[in-house]
Order: sequence, then C-alpha cells, then structure tokens
Amino acid sequence: MEYPPPFSDSHLENLVSEIKDWQITHGSLLKLVNTDQDNTVLTHPVGACLLATLFPKELFEQALGLQKVYNKLYAQVAEDEEWLYDTLKDDEFAKTLWGIHEEVKKEGLGIFRSDYMLDANPAGQVKLKQVEFNTISCAGGIHSNLVSDMHRHLQRRGLYLPAELSAPTPSINISASHLPPSHTLSTIISGLVSAHKLYGPPKSPAAEQTCILFIVQPRNFNIADERPIDYALWDQNIPTFRVELSPAVLAQTSLTPTRELLYHPPSRPVAALPLEVSVVYFRAGFEAEEYSGPGGGDAREARARLELSRAVKCPSILSHLTTFKKVQQALAMPGVLQRFLSSSSEVVGIANTFARLYPMDASTAGLEARKLAMDGEASMGYVLKPSLEGGGHNIYGSSIPAFLACTPEEKWSRYILMSKIVSPTVHNLLMSPQGLYNGPVISELGVFGVCLWRRSGEAEGRVEIIADREPCCWSFKTKSAGVDEMSVVKGYGCFDSPALVDNDVFMACCRDAEKS
Amino acid sequence: MEYPPPFSDSHLENLVSEIKDWQITHGSLLKLVNTDQDNTVLTHPVGACLLATLFPKELFEQALGLQKVYNKLYAQVAEDEEWLYDTLKDDEFAKTLWGIHEEVKKEGLGIFRSDYMLDANPAGQVKLKQVEFNTISCAGGIHSNLVSDMHRHLQRRGLYLPAELSAPTPSINISASHLPPSHTLSTIISGLVSAHKLYGPPKSPAAEQTCILFIVQPRNFNIADERPIDYALWDQNIPTFRVELSPAVLAQTSLTPTRELLYHPPSRPVAALPLEVSVVYFRAGFEAEEYSGPGGGDAREARARLELSRAVKCPSILSHLTTFKKVQQALAMPGVLQRFLSSSSEVVGIANTFARLYPMDASTAGLEARKLAMDGEASMGYVLKPSLEGGGHNIYGSSIPAFLACTPEEKWSRYILMSKIVSPTVHNLLMSPQGLYNGPVISELGVFGVCLWRRSGEAEGRVEIIADREPCCWSFKTKSAGVDEMSVVKGYGCFDSPALVDNDVFMACCRDAEKS
Repeated sequence: MEYPPPFSDSHLENLVSEIKDWQITHGSLLKLVNTDQDNTVLTHPVGACLLATLFPKELFEQALGLQKVYNKLYAQVAEDEEWLYDTLKDDEFAKTLWGIHEEVKKEGLGIFRSDYMLDANPAGQVKLKQVEFNTISCAGGIHSNLVSDMHRHLQRRGLYLPAELSAPTPSINISASHLPPSHTLSTIISGLVSAHKLYGPPKSPAAEQTCILFIVQPRNFNIADERPIDYALWDQNIPTFRVELSPAVLAQTSLTPTRELLYHPPSRPVAALPLEVSVVYFRAGFEAEEYSGPGGGDAREARARLELSRAVKCPSILSHLTTFKKVQQALAMPGVLQRFLSSSSEVVGIANTFARLYPMDASTAGLEARKLAMDGEASMGYVLKPSLEGGGHNIYGSSIPAFLACTPEEKWSRYILMSKIVSPTVHNLLMSPQGLYNGPVISELGVFGVCLWRRSGEAEGRVEIIADREPCCWSFKTKSAGVDEMSVVKGYGCFDSPALVDNDVFMACCRDAEKS
Repeated sequence: MEYPPPFSDSHLENLVSEIKDWQITHGSLLKLVNTDQDNTVLTHPVGACLLATLFPKELFEQALGLQKVYNKLYAQVAEDEEWLYDTLKDDEFAKTLWGIHEEVKKEGLGIFRSDYMLDANPAGQVKLKQVEFNTISCAGGIHSNLVSDMHRHLQRRGLYLPAELSAPTPSINISASHLPPSHTLSTIISGLVSAHKLYGPPKSPAAEQTCILFIVQPRNFNIADERPIDYALWDQNIPTFRVELSPAVLAQTSLTPTRELLYHPPSRPVAALPLEVSVVYFRAGFEAEEYSGPGGGDAREARARLELSRAVKCPSILSHLTTFKKVQQALAMPGVLQRFLSSSSEVVGIANTFARLYPMDASTAGLEARKLAMDGEASMGYVLKPSLEGGGHNIYGSSIPAFLACTPEEKWSRYILMSKIVSPTVHNLLMSPQGLYNGPVISELGVFGVCLWRRSGEAEGRVEIIADREPCCWSFKTKSAGVDEMSVVKGYGCFDSPALVDNDVFMACCRDAEKS
C-alpha cells in the first residue's frame, strides 16, 4: 500500500498553493515578531503536513477513551498537597511555585493535554505510550483544529486523489471518514465558560461585571493559537482581556480584602468601574526563567496575587505542579496510581500507557537509573528529561553519559530518565518555513481534556467532577523521523491531523516506509 | 463634537496591536507575492481604519435603498444589445469584447457594486453621488466584511471609549447601534448558489456533476478577498475551482457540440469524468491588457469559449460592457433612463445620484466638455476618466489640459468628463503597510447588488428578475483627503466601515475637521 499517493510536480505545486491560501485566510499563521512595526507586521504559514499522516484508528480511540480517567487522576493529584509536596520537595522551580501556592479555592479548572507517541516493540506490535502530561499553556489545539479542517477541505476538493486510478501499487485513497474532526476551540471555550458561570456574579460592590483574564507572554509569535479563544469568549458576551504576567498584572489588577481579583482595563476611562475576575487562564508563567532574572520578582508577586484570589485558576499552582516530570515518574512507581484511582481497570488502562520511568535520585530506583544513564550502550534506549512541564531541554540517548559527566551529581535529581519511545515511521510530506520535506515521519498525538472539579470528601477520593467534556479533541504533530525534538512553533515538525486506518494497513505502510 | 475620541499613546499602541492580531487571525491580509516560495509566503495586514469613519445614516440608507433599482436598470441595459452597441461602438476594448459576445443564454447573474461618495454643495448640504458602477471582479466585499466585523469587536472590547468620560469637548461615543453589519460574503454566495441551482443537473452525459468556475488572475496578492467565496461554496457542497483565464481555461475546459462547458480538474485522476460548469464567476478578464500582448489571443479565445457556453456567466460580455464609463455617461443624458425604467420615482432616485457627465466626442455635449476640459480654470472641477470599468487611470483637475494636449484628438472620445465630487472631510486614523495616518479623510461607499434575471418580453422591459437579494451589504473605503485615487490593495486608502450618525452630527464633525 502506498501513502501518500504519487503526485506529479504540477499537482504538488497546486496542492502547496492551495495550502498557503487556506492558511492565510484561516489564520493558520505565525507572527514574525521581529518585523513588528507601529503600522504593520509580517506573518508566514505555520508548518503543516500536506496531507494527514496515517495513524492506527484503534490506538487513537484508546487515547481519547483514556482522557476522562487522566482528567480525574490529575484533578486528584492536584488536590493531594501532601503527596505532591513529598514528590517535588527537591525541585528548585517547584519550590518557587510552592512558595506562592494558596489553598483558598475549592474549585479547579484543568485544561489538560496528554501527549502520546506510538511505540513499536520487537514483536511487531504498536502501542500507545505517554510522552508527557500538560496543564499550563496547553498549546497547539487551535492550530491542529485548523490544519485538520484544512485536510478535510483538501480531501473534498479532490486534491488527495492519485494521478492514476489503477496504478500497479495501490495507494490508500483517503476519504472523509478517515479524517476525524477536532473541536478543540469549542471544548476549551466550554471549560472556561463553565468555570466563569460557576464563579457567578461579582462579589465585590466595586465591580461592575465579571471577566476572564488571559495571562499571556510578551512578543508572542503564536497568537493564532490563542486569539480565537479570546474572540469566542467575547462572542459569548464574556469580557476577556489579555494581560502579561509582568508587569501588567501588578499594574492592572488589585485584590480586595475579601480576595476578589479586580481588573482595571487600561483601555477604559479612568473613572470607569473595574471588572471582577472570574477565571484566570494561563498561557504564560510555565517557564522557570519567567520567575527569575530582572522582573522575576514581579512575576512571582503577580502569580501570588492571582493565586491568592477567589478567581478560578486554570491551572492553580498545585495543578501546575502536577505536570512536572517528577510527578509523571512518581505516578509510574508501583502502587501509586492506586492512591488516586479506585477502579483497577482504570489503573491498568493508565499504566499501560506509561513508558519506563526512573527518578535520578539516590533511591534504589534512582541508582538503577544512574547506572543505565551512565552506560554508553544502555543509555541509547533512554531520554533524560528535566523535571518541568512541556518539551525541550531533553538529552537524548548516547549524549546522556557525557551530559551527566559535566553536571554536578547533586543536580541529577532534577532530571528523570525515561525509556525512549521507538516510533514506527510512515511516509508523508511536510511544509514549513524551513522547507519542504518528503520522507519518513513520526507523529505525536495530544488528547485534550477539559475538567472542572470541586474539592470534596464525599465523592471518590478528594474531588467531585462538576463538568467533564467528552474528549473529542486533540492536537496532532508530525516531524521528520531524523529529528528528536517536537516543537512546531520552534520549527521542528508540523501541525497535522491523523488519517485513521486499521492496524494492519498502518503496519504495512510502516514496513514500506522502512524499505524505501 | 470630537471624533475620534482623544487616545493616549499607550491606548493607541494597544489598539494597533489588537488590530494586527485580529487581522492575522481572520485573514484580513494581503499576500506578498514576491516572497512566494515552494514552502512559504509572507503576508501583511491590509490597510484598515483604526475605527469606523463617520457617515450620514440617511444617505447610507438612501444608497442601500436604490440598489434594487440599479440592479434592474443594469440588467435591462445588459439585455439591450442595440443601445449598448450604439453607445460603445467607438471604444477599442469594447470592440474586442463585442467580437466575442454571444447571445445564447437567457439567464444573467449580476454581482454589482455601485460606488458613491458624498458631495458637499456650497449651501452646506451633503448628497450622495455615484462614482461608478461595477459588475466584473467586484472586489473589496470580503475585506470590508472583515474590517466591519473587526470594528464591532473593538467596540464591544471597549477600545473606542474616550480616556475621560467628561472631557471639555464631548466626543462621540460609538456604540454597537452605530455600526451596521455587512453580509457581503453570504449575499454573493446566495447569488452564485441561485444561478447554480437554476442551471440544474449536468446536461452532458460525459459529466458527472456540475461545478462553479472562478476565473482568477495569476500571482494574486488579494486572495483574501476571493478565497472565502470558494470555501463557502464547497461548504454548500458545490465544487468550485479557480482557473486562470489564460492558458488554463483553454487547457482545462472543453465545449460539447451542445455547448455544455466541461471542466477537467488537473488534480483529478486522468480517467476521472469531467464536471459540467454551471456558473462562470469572473474575478479576472476586466483589463484591456489581459487581452493584448503575449497570451492575449489565448485570453480572447478563452473568454469566447466561456461566453459561448451554456453556463451562466457572471457577468456575460454584454453585462461587462454596461459598466464602461461611456455607458454611465450615456445613461445620464436626458431621457435615457426612461428607456429602461418606467417608474418616474425610480428615474428621479437614480438621476439624483448622477454627477455631471459629458462625452468627449464631437457631439454638442462633447464639444462643451472639451471646452471645459481644456480650460485651466474650469477643468479644476472635473475628472477625466477612461471608458473602462473600475478606478485608476484617471486624470484629475488641473492636469487635464496638459494631458489632452499630448493626446491625439481622435483618442479623446475614449474618455468621459465627470464633475469632481467634493467630499466633506472628517477625521480618522488609518493604518496600512505605508504607515499610520491621523488627519482628514474621505470615504467611498460601495453598495453590492446581487441579481439573477431571465430575458423576457413579458415582464417590464426586457428582463424578468428571478432573484434579487436585499441589498444589505456594502464595502467602505477611506483615504487621506489629500490623495485622489482610492485603491486599498494598491496602497491608497484603507478598508473601513461607516459609523452612522445624523446629518447634523456629521456636518458638525466636518466643520471641526476643517477648522483643525
């Protein structure tokens, strides 16, 4: 089976031209912030796959099906202060955040994203393995929505048809039924709206109405992944304002004695009443650097003010801390999942998606990990990851021993060791500002979960789930098989959507990709 | 009354930043075709006014109310071959087109745009005057839709509020009710869909299904004004393909002996059945240069093939010819409107919007015009316009005598002389890739009319109107008062929307703008 179907040069040119126009007219773009002027700014299309990448249907559905369990698990973990503290007590950045956490609120809103890659074992089976779990600044959802919409448009437009209907090697003819729609924007919105409604009317007599505060990074080139959320909230008559963590939060917000967070929009008349913040939605504040260096003190103070307030935080500090790699690793230790999940089928479902995870500390498991990591041969099968949320800063395989050799041993425990996921490769065409690529590729599936909970002793464990959206949305990213990192906006990889096929078709295409 | 309200520098910076992000995420962009590469292309935001420009509500409604009469008038003119031939027989480009017109079809689809400016007379009254009437490649509708949506968003976002609620000079506080929505995209779509449905199923047994053909210019930087139409038709399950007039039309279409136009998409498998074209929608083919020079012969042949076919043409050659300036001028001659419109109130309504229009030929009126045009003083009040559709190539005021002096007299009749519309100025802020502008501005209102007709002896005159959309859509462009030309995509002026106010408020603001 051939995929993608063979395209002539002129067909490919036409396809690329259709993609560029579609991206321009749908905001599937990155802002070139270094070209930003008073009166104009340049943009270019974000990296996108020319057509959807093959992915096993069964594993896609497995990942979506697990999301509600993951939502519950992470809501429980976020409310288990003692366990979290114990897990993270040696982590520097966690200490920074811990210092400003405040257990004042009873409600939590999580916009989660669980990332998976396919792992091929020697027996020729393909399994889903979790790369990481994210809860602050879960990006890529809107871009993936767009690229998924684009792939469906290009399919109906007839641009994925092979040049010959009866070629010697049959190619997979992608139909609409292979391409699942994603609804990330509406799912994220529904979560924010639920939390906004739960907060209710302003509590402070000083405030006129409530609003959502969107905490954003300065000089953001990735506005196309954020702005649609902002506009959609306004379309629901919910005032929403983008504010940088520092110095804007300190300048434009205040806390009342009863902890209402008031927002004073700089664009409103001086005499106008402030708004009361119902929900604080973070798309910034997830990097240690944001809290250190010049302005870091202000950022810490700003984060503390937001955390102290009665507003629903998405995420709260504790929820933010749950996605440190240390937590991911700790959850994989024997017996730990059972602390948070009572159903054994749920425990098994989640545990099956775990890679091998080790601490790098002085515990028994840590010492075993250190041995693996320092061994030139054994380290090949591992990735050393700093205990942060999100990708980046990873040390891969054979680079690990040398990296550890020049890192003081007392800092090793800031890392975890994770078995390398060996993804089977399929073929696809990628297009990004870096160039056109035609060759073997590897994809990453991110399943979004949106969940609103209340701390409670009544329901199972520590939390009562108030609203939990069906996990019908995802992000999907694909990169050249030769590149370790996956960050589309940094130029590694492309936004994509999955073309869902049966396992055997997928495996046949993997074998063909390896042969060629 | 002050308008725009006084903004602080930081407020202005915030407003500009909000506008750029909105434009990027909504496709309110121009493609920089000179940066087009295999894998990427740059775009920048199209020129846009920072806020809606003041416009008298009454005159806005007058213009919208007249559109149905204009639709009928131009449908009638398009079906009056004899009168049209007589009016245009001396025009070179008209001769080119006339040679390929073919009266085979009974149905006509017009997507019209009647352009107006405000004319201030010495008595201090403001009237609506028609600049021109367009029917081929009526552009700007989608861009105006977007900018109008953007102004409404920025208004609800609170960005148009004055810094002080009780300033010494009260400023006009623009509310949602001042900002009429426009629905150009849905109106244009409804016209194309009506014509597509009227055509019915494929007539040729060789064709599988019907489709709409979009005739477009190569290297088009203004795709953002066209692509949304294409996508919206696909959303209604109508296959739509963009084809360049030359050489693609000749290569990709064929005529059956019974004049069905068949389209063979290059992106489909060789063995696949062609589609039968129901509607040919022109966004190209309106400039004389497209039919001359290298490839001009092919373009003429292509246009002839499209015209000969049974497909509904938007516009047909005759309809295209109705928008030559000569026709506009001829319609303004005494008694001519009565040939096409039986209701005297309709005649008066239309005639009231006419500027003074003269031919430049050897007729009595023409000789009078030549005298005015050659006179240094008198010519100041006029514009010399080539008999084409659309703007550009105009000679303004005092430049006319010198221009005529170096133009052979036998070519003068290719022009018409039109009294200059003296627009009152108001203040606004414009932002375009050329820069930020703050000062007196002049606007142009284009009212869209979409009308499907059938040639008939039964109904009034020559045509029976089958479908005539309510004229609820428009384009609105604004330029610095110091610039004669208005073409946003060429960098003169900005897309805009009207802030509708009472006449007296408008006039008060005009006086303030003149004083400052």
